[in-house]
Amino acid sequence: MMQTNEIIWSQSEKQFARTAFDSAYEREIEAILQEVRHQAGAIAEISDLWKLHDFLSARRHDLDGKYEYHYSSLIFVFAQLVNEGWISLVELNGLSEEKQGKIAALAKTLGSTLH
Amino acid sequence: MMQTNEIIWSQSEKQFARTAFDSAYEREIEAILQEVRHQAGAIAEISDLWKLHDFLSARRHDLDGKYEYHYSSLIFVFAQLVNEGWISLVELNGLSEEKQGKIAALAKTLGSTLH
Repeated sequence: MMQTNEIIWSQSEKQFARTAFDSAYEREIEAILQEVRHQAGAIAEISDLWKLHDFLSARRHDLDGKYEYHYSSLIFVFAQLVNEGWISLVELNGLSEEKQGKIAALAKTLGSTLH
Repeated sequence: MMQTNEIIWSQSEKQFARTAFDSAYEREIEAILQEVRHQAGAIAEISDLWKLHDFLSARRHDLDGKYEYHYSSLIFVFAQLVNEGWISLVELNGLSEEKQGKIAALAKTLGSTLH
């Protein structure tokens, strides 16, 4: 397994990573807000309500696990966010080429595993 | 403790109780639907989303426990519904006077305990 906790993050990379991470988070939140407004607008009966509840439970659990900001796992987090489309590889060009390469490779592996 | 499982329900009381029970359920559901539409319309940020999620979790748990239709516990269920305002004592006038009396007494006890 890749030892991402051995990767060194420069000060500028840390700042860059934080901004990229926050952008991805805001995009995903915005998408969830839109989806909830859409679902809430179409609520007609009790089953719609529990469907909304299930959706929120799943998203909350997912977000809690995904957006942990630790440098030891950040390569994996970015790979997942790239894989899910919340950030693009191009937007991570403030990181070293080595990190970008690892993220790209991991995202590709995740893509072929999950899809 | 009152032995409600010894209470006999006549056929007409059973029909009447089912209708009253369903009415209370529909009223409470309608109130929840309205509250969710209201909350969903005012969602601006992620904390509003989790507040909505918490609200739905609590209501779902509450409803699951409350609307169990068993004759052995129906006196208690009606007392709770009266206490919470989802049905009025007057609307239970298709039940025997004994049952109405027990429901009224229990609702009063719940009222003084909970409020």
